[in-house]
Amino acid sequence: MLNFDLHNPTRIVFGAKTVSRLDELVPAGARVLILYGGESARRNGTLAEVRAGLGQREVHEFGGIEPNPSYETLMEAVALIQRKGLNFLLAVGGGSVIDGTKFVAAAVDYPGDPWEIMESHGATVHRALPFGTVLTLPATGSEMNKGSVVSKKATKAKLVFASEHVFPRFSILDPTKTYSLPLPQVANGVVDAFTHVMEQYLTYPVDGRVQDRFAEGLLQTLVEIGAEVMAKPDNYDARANLMWTATLALNGLIVAGVPEDWSTHMIGHELTALHGIDHARTLAAVLPANLQVRREAKRAKLLQYAERIWNITEGSEDERIGIAITSTRVFFESLGVPTRLREYGLNAGHIDEVIAQLEAHGMTALGEHEDVTLAVSRQILEAAL
Amino acid sequence: MLNFDLHNPTRIVFGAKTVSRLDELVPAGARVLILYGGESARRNGTLAEVRAGLGQREVHEFGGIEPNPSYETLMEAVALIQRKGLNFLLAVGGGSVIDGTKFVAAAVDYPGDPWEIMESHGATVHRALPFGTVLTLPATGSEMNKGSVVSKKATKAKLVFASEHVFPRFSILDPTKTYSLPLPQVANGVVDAFTHVMEQYLTYPVDGRVQDRFAEGLLQTLVEIGAEVMAKPDNYDARANLMWTATLALNGLIVAGVPEDWSTHMIGHELTALHGIDHARTLAAVLPANLQVRREAKRAKLLQYAERIWNITEGSEDERIGIAITSTRVFFESLGVPTRLREYGLNAGHIDEVIAQLEAHGMTALGEHEDVTLAVSRQILEAAL
Repeated sequence: MLNFDLHNPTRIVFGAKTVSRLDELVPAGARVLILYGGESARRNGTLAEVRAGLGQREVHEFGGIEPNPSYETLMEAVALIQRKGLNFLLAVGGGSVIDGTKFVAAAVDYPGDPWEIMESHGATVHRALPFGTVLTLPATGSEMNKGSVVSKKATKAKLVFASEHVFPRFSILDPTKTYSLPLPQVANGVVDAFTHVMEQYLTYPVDGRVQDRFAEGLLQTLVEIGAEVMAKPDNYDARANLMWTATLALNGLIVAGVPEDWSTHMIGHELTALHGIDHARTLAAVLPANLQVRREAKRAKLLQYAERIWNITEGSEDERIGIAITSTRVFFESLGVPTRLREYGLNAGHIDEVIAQLEAHGMTALGEHEDVTLAVSRQILEAAL
Repeated sequence: MLNFDLHNPTRIVFGAKTVSRLDELVPAGARVLILYGGESARRNGTLAEVRAGLGQREVHEFGGIEPNPSYETLMEAVALIQRKGLNFLLAVGGGSVIDGTKFVAAAVDYPGDPWEIMESHGATVHRALPFGTVLTLPATGSEMNKGSVVSKKATKAKLVFASEHVFPRFSILDPTKTYSLPLPQVANGVVDAFTHVMEQYLTYPVDGRVQDRFAEGLLQTLVEIGAEVMAKPDNYDARANLMWTATLALNGLIVAGVPEDWSTHMIGHELTALHGIDHARTLAAVLPANLQVRREAKRAKLLQYAERIWNITEGSEDERIGIAITSTRVFFESLGVPTRLREYGLNAGHIDEVIAQLEAHGMTALGEHEDVTLAVSRQILEAAL
């Protein structure tokens, strides 16, 4: 097992009808900015419920945060906060709104060009406004971690930052808030959570037995409930299990003491930034190809994955690994998520530009062994076509 | 899945050679009291290492905290802190020292008779001194939770309190610090952690799939490493897995969203308070008997336990449940821990007094259905003889 630090002060408030607890969770007298994405939050009544929960506090709203939150939009929220002197943020939405809120929280009092926050990957963040979240889309885990992904439209850059200062103070997870989600977004959430676990699990063994079993428990649960969450949007327990699984998939727990990969995410980010493909869909295309290309380095964990997640115990090692990778692909496709880049309109001619962007962003030695060079990323993209 | 709140701000610093990080973790200028148990902490060099880690800070020591920390002893530490004006506590030891330190932290500024802290089960605690821990015995999980058990010698009472104010600020978990433990203590730790998981897992199904799988992952790991930690005291990975498993067994995670039992613990506490039997050994005797007596109410989870932990899939339901309970008993005994009260010198004549103490402490409706009356506790004790 590797040495680790683990610290996660976010308070999770989980269950039906928990939005009303905002009054107890947000400081009395806070001057609040609600940040949200599209108008569905207003249409389905969540915004009104949130405002009711906030009682007599001064409340402002900032909508329009994009599915891949942009620096340009977020800086408008920063200006509003500065103009109105607000001191508490409340993200209402999914990972994009929460990621955007983290950037805004860190940018408000940032003593310099706030884009430095992204370029330093958070190292230059020394304070942030306090904020909470009301999660409506289970997927990214942002509701219980210190990470954030923000894009700059001007340069098509999509970068990650992390800081201890941007843990949410609290996150309200009410599974009934997910009933009205479009099914493709639910499918994306399953794929996103699944891939988060894989980035932290499918590396090489370090005798982290609990970490492996926790990761496997999350994967098994996603495989089990994938069809259920798609078939019955108002199945409370299925949605509750998805919501809690997605949070645990990326809250720092399963990675504590084990290696991590993240090359699938880094390659996927460039595909989203260049071509606007949904984040989860880039992962669905890149992950199986990535496992295929790097199957030798990942052999031991691939065999464990084959046995413990897909119950594959017959055949040669290579056959078992092959079936496990195919099973992953079939699982994603069963949710209606294509796993080939050609199904997203990309072909071999698009690869050079992706590689150039990876190079521009310093993504030249990715993965748990830092051996995913640009040449390996190219192989992965070719295998994903 | 049940609604839940989850909040755990303790920072875990895990791995070999991490005691030296005290200098970064304890506030500069803190006036520190180190609390510890027996002299083994001094003999094996841990106290010296801790003092070195604390650098130039003012440091005092308080030793002699008992295996079941007593109110009487702990109040001496409270007096020392008040006399010297100390403002940071550092527990160096296992669960008893950490539990005791939690009580001391809450008692120092308590405006009334500090025993009220125990009688109110923590409800009257509104502040506590900050403290950290250096864990030397993996077992209780106290290093990452808000609970504490303290005994009063005068009345042979052993009570539990919990408060958000007594989460450790940090806990240092260095598996090498466990190498010198006497093997019976290591065995006790395995049994204690195993039983903690069972109290939160072996109740009734609420479709908490991740909670079940996490609990099962901890149980499977303990079954797997039990023999290893006993056979090779300096097997780093085995000790690391035990240490991390024991922490996760009782840090609020696996219980979030599911029912909990704790009747085995409550009955066990009385056995320790009356007869001085090691905490874990009372659990080893009570748990199998408890499962046996309440097998109907726990049927569904017992069958799941039989299949997922012990791979028992053949035979009638009752046969499978019987074998699972026997397997639990055999596992504890394989660690050298007897599972019959008669092996601890008790017989049917001792039961009345235990029942009287349970009644005196209000333990008349225990368990996940609050249906473990004094009559059921009596049945359990009889089955445990």
